[in-house]
Amino acid sequence: MTVSVLRGVHEVETEQRAVPVPAEGEVLIKVAAVGTCGSDVHYYEQGRIGDAVVREPLVLGHEASGVVVACGPGARKHVPGTRVAIEPGVPCGRCAECRLGRYNLCPDMVFFGTPPIDGAFAEYVTLHEAFAYPLPDSISDEAGALLEPLSVGVWGARKARIGPGSRVLVTGAGPIGLIAAQTARAFGASEVVVTDVNEHRLAVAGELGARTIDVGRAELTGVEADVLLECSGNPRATLQGIAALGRAGRAVLIGMGADELALPVARVQQYELEVTGTFRYANTWPTAIELAASGAVRLDRLVTHRFPLTEVRGALTVAARDPATIKPVVVPA
Amino acid sequence: MTVSVLRGVHEVETEQRAVPVPAEGEVLIKVAAVGTCGSDVHYYEQGRIGDAVVREPLVLGHEASGVVVACGPGARKHVPGTRVAIEPGVPCGRCAECRLGRYNLCPDMVFFGTPPIDGAFAEYVTLHEAFAYPLPDSISDEAGALLEPLSVGVWGARKARIGPGSRVLVTGAGPIGLIAAQTARAFGASEVVVTDVNEHRLAVAGELGARTIDVGRAELTGVEADVLLECSGNPRATLQGIAALGRAGRAVLIGMGADELALPVARVQQYELEVTGTFRYANTWPTAIELAASGAVRLDRLVTHRFPLTEVRGALTVAARDPATIKPVVVPA
Amino acid sequence: MTVSVLRGVHEVETEQRAVPVPAEGEVLIKVAAVGTCGSDVHYYEQGRIGDAVVREPLVLGHEASGVVVACGPGARKHVPGTRVAIEPGVPCGRCAECRLGRYNLCPDMVFFGTPPIDGAFAEYVTLHEAFAYPLPDSISDEAGALLEPLSVGVWGARKARIGPGSRVLVTGAGPIGLIAAQTARAFGASEVVVTDVNEHRLAVAGELGARTIDVGRAELTGVEADVLLECSGNPRATLQGIAALGRAGRAVLIGMGADELALPVARVQQYELEVTGTFRYANTWPTAIELAASGAVRLDRLVTHRFPLTEVRGALTVAARDPATIKPVVVPA
Amino acid sequence: MTVSVLRGVHEVETEQRAVPVPAEGEVLIKVAAVGTCGSDVHYYEQGRIGDAVVREPLVLGHEASGVVVACGPGARKHVPGTRVAIEPGVPCGRCAECRLGRYNLCPDMVFFGTPPIDGAFAEYVTLHEAFAYPLPDSISDEAGALLEPLSVGVWGARKARIGPGSRVLVTGAGPIGLIAAQTARAFGASEVVVTDVNEHRLAVAGELGARTIDVGRAELTGVEADVLLECSGNPRATLQGIAALGRAGRAVLIGMGADELALPVARVQQYELEVTGTFRYANTWPTAIELAASGAVRLDRLVTHRFPLTEVRGALTVAARDPATIKPVVVPA
Repeated sequence: MTVSVLRGVHEVETEQRAVPVPAEGEVLIKVAAVGTCGSDVHYYEQGRIGDAVVREPLVLGHEASGVVVACGPGARKHVPGTRVAIEPGVPCGRCAECRLGRYNLCPDMVFFGTPPIDGAFAEYVTLHEAFAYPLPDSISDEAGALLEPLSVGVWGARKARIGPGSRVLVTGAGPIGLIAAQTARAFGASEVVVTDVNEHRLAVAGELGARTIDVGRAELTGVEADVLLECSGNPRATLQGIAALGRAGRAVLIGMGADELALPVARVQQYELEVTGTFRYANTWPTAIELAASGAVRLDRLVTHRFPLTEVRGALTVAARDPATIKPVVVPA
Repeated sequence: MTVSVLRGVHEVETEQRAVPVPAEGEVLIKVAAVGTCGSDVHYYEQGRIGDAVVREPLVLGHEASGVVVACGPGARKHVPGTRVAIEPGVPCGRCAECRLGRYNLCPDMVFFGTPPIDGAFAEYVTLHEAFAYPLPDSISDEAGALLEPLSVGVWGARKARIGPGSRVLVTGAGPIGLIAAQTARAFGASEVVVTDVNEHRLAVAGELGARTIDVGRAELTGVEADVLLECSGNPRATLQGIAALGRAGRAVLIGMGADELALPVARVQQYELEVTGTFRYANTWPTAIELAASGAVRLDRLVTHRFPLTEVRGALTVAARDPATIKPVVVPA
Repeated sequence: MTVSVLRGVHEVETEQRAVPVPAEGEVLIKVAAVGTCGSDVHYYEQGRIGDAVVREPLVLGHEASGVVVACGPGARKHVPGTRVAIEPGVPCGRCAECRLGRYNLCPDMVFFGTPPIDGAFAEYVTLHEAFAYPLPDSISDEAGALLEPLSVGVWGARKARIGPGSRVLVTGAGPIGLIAAQTARAFGASEVVVTDVNEHRLAVAGELGARTIDVGRAELTGVEADVLLECSGNPRATLQGIAALGRAGRAVLIGMGADELALPVARVQQYELEVTGTFRYANTWPTAIELAASGAVRLDRLVTHRFPLTEVRGALTVAARDPATIKPVVVPA
Repeated sequence: MTVSVLRGVHEVETEQRAVPVPAEGEVLIKVAAVGTCGSDVHYYEQGRIGDAVVREPLVLGHEASGVVVACGPGARKHVPGTRVAIEPGVPCGRCAECRLGRYNLCPDMVFFGTPPIDGAFAEYVTLHEAFAYPLPDSISDEAGALLEPLSVGVWGARKARIGPGSRVLVTGAGPIGLIAAQTARAFGASEVVVTDVNEHRLAVAGELGARTIDVGRAELTGVEADVLLECSGNPRATLQGIAALGRAGRAVLIGMGADELALPVARVQQYELEVTGTFRYANTWPTAIELAASGAVRLDRLVTHRFPLTEVRGALTVAARDPATIKPVVVPA
């Protein structure tokens, strides 16, 4: 099979490998679509994300859907031919975090496209059957792949305890921000405001139902929010967002990039604000599938480019450079 | 009656005033003991705390107990002669925060010893009967006054969701830290570590059952906590405490003083830490009374000095200057 | 002004009374619409509900909207002319339940149309300003009145912790069931099944977006729910509903009528089911207004009859007798 | 090795079997002590519990401690010689319940001494290493075995949300009731009342710190509780307990035996009571170990009889017949 391999900074090439064999409890999946994520771009451009360093050739890609084509020993959940979304991280299932239901914090997580684990920029992948979720016809292959970033949004909305009537501020209108805004609405938020400085992205946010503010041109004033979903990774935007929270407000830091944030302690105390962050997600696919299938969250609208498996470099480049890009998708077939 | 009035920075004098008359639903309380709090000291030394500025002569003191001596119209909860602890903040009971049970965030709170509301460094005070709590014989007048800082500890422990088995780190061994450490234990914490640089206070922490670390002499290493109760107001101690949190750890910022905290964003995300602060307390007196009455929290041990109402200045000075001070108490009678 | 008074079982007559004068913090409201509730019918037909006995002439009606026409002393929240929904129960704001945010459990609640407190079948009522909520133009007077039963639905949905992806079973398609089904959807439920034996009501449930099952004709099989919103008060329906719950399912008993329910203990244990009931609501109007204003819950669709204030008897009778009735509304003007 | 086998109703005999070999991730444990549980007695006397029928010879026993003597492939958590407590149910770790952290509800749970899975009335057992917990020296072998019923108590206390100040009623003073009462206290309950009709057991409850009421001789009056931990399985006691709950009270049904409970619906609604049940436990051993190690819960006090592995029949008989029995323990060595 063909796979796309990251060999070093800015070095991505295809190579031929043997089709993997599903182990006990696993299924073999023919990959149908793979989204390109900011972390893929980061590995491509820097060769590392914090302590995770690409030392050996690595297959990137962790936002994926496909079709089950074979079942390993003991795998009984899916029949070949089933279209599935892929949850790309398989936790140990035995440690304290796993048993508490916080499996995203499992220290032994095996996660696609994170060194040294290969990802989904490939024709085939293997996966434990419990992490493959059947897709209804109403969800396309590409939307099926984007259930992964939708899971990030669902997890953020849960952490923020968004419910009917919540007033939500989303800082950053990149792929995660656009998903977070839709997810907030799907969780019942009565007011969703999205800020960014990128007019292309703000236009999409508006089209998807949010009120938008270009904070490069206007002040973020007059907004009082119960929840901040921080999706920019920008410290200034984050602090503006926190300043907009009302009493007992919750700030969920989803966007990566900032090292330190100058937290306003007195405000956190006087308003009893809660600040937390998200690391991936847990138990989100069933909900994400419902939100996508019902149309409450529109994932196909986010796909701006398509590339074959031989042009992963193009997908990573456009994601990094083009301000009008939202989500480039790699289609192996 | 005699009251002690703050007239300006470092100016505290007694004066004679008419005994107040309890309004509808209020009781008149003869004050038995009043703790001296860091905020009293702050008003005394700076004339303000943030936006709260002492513009008119102000009676300080909000940690108080006493005896009901008269009941206003419609007050039926207590009979004269009842020893009571005083919850010194009376919320409006009608706003959204009050109705949600978060009455500590009521924007219309009327709070003892906070400009322009007079406090308890006086022979008599009036109070809505619902905020006076009968004291069992097992709680002394002084301990009854210190149910107020104990309420701070109870609120912090609740915010931190401390329960059996929790591993708790308390940074700062001042009055609040010493109470927080005991409260954590009373909530079931299996491990309570207290840090400070003041050997006198650490000694008391040890006596009260905590493991202590003098962070002026030793590193805070090898401690992994589920909960940080930050009681120092010191940014460096706070960051050390946050660094000691394990996955899904909770940091509750109780101590005041820091303006900004350089929050380590990546750690907050990867460990999904929660950071919040406390503003006073809500619904804590019944629990605080139980903890003090059972001996689970020892409040009398914290009283290091006693002053009559005519020497409030002495109480404020010793609280500000003497490193061996824990809690000076003013005894009006 | 004209009021409609219940003088005894099946005795409802209008009489003239003085327009009430708003007390401290109260507003005077000219009533625009009042829904007829099952409890109104019950008082009309039985003269009592449990321990609440109608001993003196009583004005019924607690589902109401109107217009503020005057403000009592200290009432500053609304200006005359403001259209408002009425939250018909005013708690004490001081007891332990109130302070915990569970004000619906306040033992000193003053509630419209519950002996001995008069209700809203009148031209004017007075109300504490904090319990009057401005209505946006998108909510009609009648829908504004029906925010009260919508609050019952919101409270039930919260108690049941309904969120995106929840599978919800609603037993009973009366006014509360029809509202609960819509509320469940608005809270994100992915599947809402409504059961009843009344084909008229089931037709409306279907029109409002639920899957319906006529349990007089078909078995309730093949339904596995996370949540049961019990709105029939019928023990058999309740038990069927509980039997349909999956692991960790929640049953919320909203419908009144049953004295005892033969709870299947082993099932409750093996599936760790939670069973609870609701008593009115707390903190629901802001959310209810959002749900009605956005169209997520359609209240006007439930109004099947209209009566003037002189024909409250007609409203009560049709509510009691006609199987095609959903909600008769009394329009005083 | 010697094992004790249940061959049919009232038929228990020892037989010799090969020592089991630990599989991937498992350890081999030499059993040190095994408590006798009511469910063991039930299988012995009835040959079944509900749908769980003993069709093949079965080794009973699921309350156990021992010493790790060998590690299977990939098992790295314990070194041979480590004294451990045994969590006797190993869930699949992959299903929706497991991933949500509710692994006690895993439909594929493999549980000791439940048909067709053999238990711990044996010289050796194998177990996944993650379900063996090192024991500190302060916990005896017998107490280590009784961490299993203590886990039942911890789970019940968590479900009931017991915390500082809770008023707790425990109905039934059998082994679970005696543990639940101690656990409630360890969770901070300010008042623990235990009821039973067995004076021997009530005496022990009193010795362990509870207030006791012999409901065969006195009425259960004047008790208002926040929490009912129902440990009798007796419907009359359960209803009395529910009647003693105050507003927003929680009833947790732990005791087995009742088929149906005549739930008082109007009370459940008016007081918004919560009724739930427990099925085993999840994530309890770490907490149970802390409670036993600190002395907050005294498990050794519950051991009333000891039997060798050859006399399991005696243990089961005394547990069934003797009213002064609390916990007979089988000691294989």
